[in-house]
Amino acid sequence: MDLMQQARASSTFNPTKLTVIIYDNEATVRARRAAFHRVEDALGLLDNMKLPHIYSGLDREGLYLEGVRRARVITNDMITHGHSHFQWLNERYQICNSSPFGMNFLMFRRTIELQGTVEQRRYWLQEIDQMRINGAYAQTELGHGTFVRGIETTATFDVDTDTFTIHCPTPTSVKYWPGGLGFSCSHAIVAARLITHGKDHGVHMFIVQIRSLEDFAPVHGVELGDLGMKMAYNGTCNGYARFNYLRVPRSSLLAAHAQVARDGTYCQAQAKVGTLPLSKRVYSTMLDTRRNIVRCVAFGLAQAATIAARYSIVREQGRLMFSDAAEEEETAIIKYKSQHYRLLSLIAQSYAILFAAKDFDFRYDQLVREQENDDHARLPFMHALSTGLKAWATTIASAGATEARKMCGGHGFVALSGLPEIEGSVSATATFEGENYVMWQQLVVYLFKQVRASCAGQNVDAEVKDYIGGVRLYLSDGASPPRIQSCDKKTLFDGSTLVLIYKKRSQRALAAAYSSYRDMCNRSSAAEAWNACMMTSLAAGQAFVEYIVLESFMKRTSPSVTRDAPVSQALSHLFSLFALTTITSPTPSFAAGSFVEHGLLTPDELNEIRVHINELLTSLLPNIAALTDAWDFTDSSLCSALGCKDGNVYERLLSWTRQLPANSGRAVEKAWEASEGIEEFFKASRL
Amino acid sequence: MDLMQQARASSTFNPTKLTVIIYDNEATVRARRAAFHRVEDALGLLDNMKLPHIYSGLDREGLYLEGVRRARVITNDMITHGHSHFQWLNERYQICNSSPFGMNFLMFRRTIELQGTVEQRRYWLQEIDQMRINGAYAQTELGHGTFVRGIETTATFDVDTDTFTIHCPTPTSVKYWPGGLGFSCSHAIVAARLITHGKDHGVHMFIVQIRSLEDFAPVHGVELGDLGMKMAYNGTCNGYARFNYLRVPRSSLLAAHAQVARDGTYCQAQAKVGTLPLSKRVYSTMLDTRRNIVRCVAFGLAQAATIAARYSIVREQGRLMFSDAAEEEETAIIKYKSQHYRLLSLIAQSYAILFAAKDFDFRYDQLVREQENDDHARLPFMHALSTGLKAWATTIASAGATEARKMCGGHGFVALSGLPEIEGSVSATATFEGENYVMWQQLVVYLFKQVRASCAGQNVDAEVKDYIGGVRLYLSDGASPPRIQSCDKKTLFDGSTLVLIYKKRSQRALAAAYSSYRDMCNRSSAAEAWNACMMTSLAAGQAFVEYIVLESFMKRTSPSVTRDAPVSQALSHLFSLFALTTITSPTPSFAAGSFVEHGLLTPDELNEIRVHINELLTSLLPNIAALTDAWDFTDSSLCSALGCKDGNVYERLLSWTRQLPANSGRAVEKAWEASEGIEEFFKASRL
Repeated sequence: MDLMQQARASSTFNPTKLTVIIYDNEATVRARRAAFHRVEDALGLLDNMKLPHIYSGLDREGLYLEGVRRARVITNDMITHGHSHFQWLNERYQICNSSPFGMNFLMFRRTIELQGTVEQRRYWLQEIDQMRINGAYAQTELGHGTFVRGIETTATFDVDTDTFTIHCPTPTSVKYWPGGLGFSCSHAIVAARLITHGKDHGVHMFIVQIRSLEDFAPVHGVELGDLGMKMAYNGTCNGYARFNYLRVPRSSLLAAHAQVARDGTYCQAQAKVGTLPLSKRVYSTMLDTRRNIVRCVAFGLAQAATIAARYSIVREQGRLMFSDAAEEEETAIIKYKSQHYRLLSLIAQSYAILFAAKDFDFRYDQLVREQENDDHARLPFMHALSTGLKAWATTIASAGATEARKMCGGHGFVALSGLPEIEGSVSATATFEGENYVMWQQLVVYLFKQVRASCAGQNVDAEVKDYIGGVRLYLSDGASPPRIQSCDKKTLFDGSTLVLIYKKRSQRALAAAYSSYRDMCNRSSAAEAWNACMMTSLAAGQAFVEYIVLESFMKRTSPSVTRDAPVSQALSHLFSLFALTTITSPTPSFAAGSFVEHGLLTPDELNEIRVHINELLTSLLPNIAALTDAWDFTDSSLCSALGCKDGNVYERLLSWTRQLPANSGRAVEKAWEASEGIEEFFKASRL
Repeated sequence: MDLMQQARASSTFNPTKLTVIIYDNEATVRARRAAFHRVEDALGLLDNMKLPHIYSGLDREGLYLEGVRRARVITNDMITHGHSHFQWLNERYQICNSSPFGMNFLMFRRTIELQGTVEQRRYWLQEIDQMRINGAYAQTELGHGTFVRGIETTATFDVDTDTFTIHCPTPTSVKYWPGGLGFSCSHAIVAARLITHGKDHGVHMFIVQIRSLEDFAPVHGVELGDLGMKMAYNGTCNGYARFNYLRVPRSSLLAAHAQVARDGTYCQAQAKVGTLPLSKRVYSTMLDTRRNIVRCVAFGLAQAATIAARYSIVREQGRLMFSDAAEEEETAIIKYKSQHYRLLSLIAQSYAILFAAKDFDFRYDQLVREQENDDHARLPFMHALSTGLKAWATTIASAGATEARKMCGGHGFVALSGLPEIEGSVSATATFEGENYVMWQQLVVYLFKQVRASCAGQNVDAEVKDYIGGVRLYLSDGASPPRIQSCDKKTLFDGSTLVLIYKKRSQRALAAAYSSYRDMCNRSSAAEAWNACMMTSLAAGQAFVEYIVLESFMKRTSPSVTRDAPVSQALSHLFSLFALTTITSPTPSFAAGSFVEHGLLTPDELNEIRVHINELLTSLLPNIAALTDAWDFTDSSLCSALGCKDGNVYERLLSWTRQLPANSGRAVEKAWEASEGIEEFFKASRL
């Protein structure tokens, strides 16, 4: 704890200034703190020496009931105090679908908003907002995820009864995975193929009651259940729903964009002038979801890094190789270069993701304003960028959370450290809301289209016009890219030089990928060519996102933005560290050597970079506590015996361990009770 | 399932031939199969449509009791049938310390064997072998892991009573983490500082009874408990022990190498001529443990890859980008290049680890024979290699298991997939039995010593003499390494060329790391210099291990070794894929670009490599089922709804889900029961 105080005292800046930057303004910092305090107080989580209930070895049911308990308090607080602090992040800073009531306000509500008629919206939205119902978003099926057109559940219209029959005809068509669906929802949006008069009109959305409001039992014609234990999110009941000829009224179809008449006639309403067509609005919703995921994983990674930082500050273990044999004191593990390096790399990544998210938010707000004026020109670019950012941020954060957990050694492997739960919940983001390998491809398809348009003399989106122009330079003559002009040490480590290196590297990678694809197209179908070149293309997409992220990070380091010189200096160091370590230890891809391979950097420059990284690590070491404290996590939200602010690791870990219910002795008695002595116990006369 | 049959039919070799290679001979294959069948039958695990009990949402106690049940059956089978198939790998192919009885036969037994007197061995070893007792190995403390000298628990000799008093003086000295210690052990080896007449003689080993053999309650003076839920290994009770002035007889000290006389006089016995000194025997034990870990993680990664392969073969999802819009059929995900690439990379890695383990075993057996003749010359090299292999294999396998799980999307995140458990258990190996960053350092310290000896004209170990000679070439004149002579396409992809590239790359990296360290030593202490250069040094160690691993892999592809031409061809392709993908997508390190950076490969050659990788992927695609089937995993050991041999993924996943006890309805009733209606349910009048 003494070590922890020293680590804080060494900071070169005031961490609360950075907290305000992270949460945008002081008012939000205050409001969030107040909301966290109320919720944690109501849940009895304020005493950080008390074993958190979720770690008490609960079974599936116990974990779910604890999730309900937490969700109730949070929902109450949000409705009572009229805020949305927990809409995406819950009280443990995990993404909202760790709560069985989380989807009600997100996917469930939004789909009705987007696809409901005026009457449907008038009725359902207030039911939702006051939580008189709780909704799930049931799209994914056992056999169908990303590819929505593959959905098999049917909604067949019956003219005689004026109803749809919702039915799952096969095992693969069972709805599987929707958050809250297992035990917690009274209603669900169900994606199903609309069939009238024997004709399949494709997938449409239906609002369906799935449980009785009297006793909460599943309605007749629906089988509901939970998927069992997951790596994380066990406080909610991701579930399955098997529809067996469930009849629902015709009004169940969300009918803003397509209607079924009383006689079964199907018609699609034209998008009215001045409003956004459905497809574009669906895109916008996806954008919104993805930007929230990007922001959330910044917090997830920061949580893991905060725990690892605090543990590394107070954990003393062993001594440096070759150190004086007489030296008896052990060394704090943060002082080992490997730990020091890994920790600061993760901290830098968490800020890189956060600032990329903020920059995207800024662009998103602009887009929303433009779309209100019927200008959708930037939607394709924004959609592509959102896929790339989502894929990149969730990949980085997931690997980083794992790394942070491993940095805490054996103690990190135990649930009490809080790290397995954080690792699991961050890891899930690589899959949900668009599997990352699908996301990367969508970005590259967009970039290829822009290159092709540019080559054909057609319009290129304004956001990438200059960038694609640079790509074409490498395309047209196949020349090696020009070296960055000046490479004396001072300039090499300049922010703008680094951004330029990232830009040129990604342009070269994109040109190479596009050339391969184009050449391959001459020999095979476009689909085969795409598949053959995929790994190179994905590497180009990744390089593009890393360039964008670096640019976003650089902007945020400027004193004109931070309004605090010491904060700016620390962030500048962190920016350089992020840029340079991504060069020396690139994100895994099929072209990980591309900084070197493309002749952008010489071996000598790489050596200079390694030396400079060491200098940056030294400069940043005194700020590790401040850079992690700045995220303003409460002890309860970290929920970690290793990561509380006071650094009192050992006493807390021991105390929590001793409070575990299994240690009351019953487990041993149960294991023992069938035995008639020690030999029987081990050898098991009764298996 | 049709797809699964096709995938098997396309194989170019007979997988059972590869099975024999994996398990060394046919007799072992048969014996293992028989043992698995007996055990799975006794445990009721043969019906693969039945939900495995461990997935039924058990609480901490339930998971432990299931672990006891499994351990009893396994132990019975091993004792009854006199085999050791489950000594390191249990019936789920996880490392032995997933069983509460696992340490009895390993660390507990070995320490007595190594450090017990003749009398102590005579008494204890037969107690252990017949499992009349069950032992833990209690070394690690809450505050002390890798650094044994830091251990705080004391064993103070009292002349009056002729006893030692075992005591934990601080929270950090509480024994924390030993396998089985929580609920399952009657005895423990306790590492404690031996104190006589006020003098501290350092850490010694004591054999201590910790539970009554009558009722299994902890003996007076010991508090025992479990650490709670972990990411994996929840079938055993990693535990803590807090000694509070526990008195044990003087005979508790394992006294082969140090004794305390009746009057408290301490003396260390000299190592007798012709026997191995204790320190060397301890090293040998560590070697043995590490080689087993390396082998085990090959199986762990192969399990994850097998599940991902089978799922990828039968999972159909979406269509290729740019594919014909009229095309209605979905595509099996194995056909997407990214999935295809990732899967085969993982399969190649699992074989690379296995063959490296086999090669190490071969060297180890040789060493044991030499040591029996008092020749310990190869011990330092073997110890260094064991540290490097352990660090490398566990890093690769852990990242690979995570990758395999992510490749199964959302379904991989659910416990029923079996992947979270495999991922967690493989991941733990990066930490236990030597934290990987400590391991890497030990390897590099050894390599540096050899370089220094060579520079000083002193003896260099025979195993690395030629290698270190090559390192010195780069050291003496600082010259760029000579390019590999011939680089026409055929030669570039030759096995021996690839091994040479790896060798030269690692020599160059080691020379660079050593130079930096040596230069830094002129400016600071050796310890500071070591720390400053650590990241570069670790990268050099990693490059060295990758060279050794590649060499081991190549040897195994030869028809003279496999005795089967089609198997040799498939393994050769896999070898090339491993070598080339490790070049294009290097293992993350501080010098990931080192293949390119050191001028070993030109950009044109890298492009050729990428093209060749694509060809290899195409050649290997028909063999994916065979390459994973060859590991001969039983359905029950994979314990995965996604990975059973028949490929009947969806029906099994749905069936297991419906069998989950939580879906019997109690969870909903419990959540509902305090409510007086839907609004109360959600809004929680009763929190």
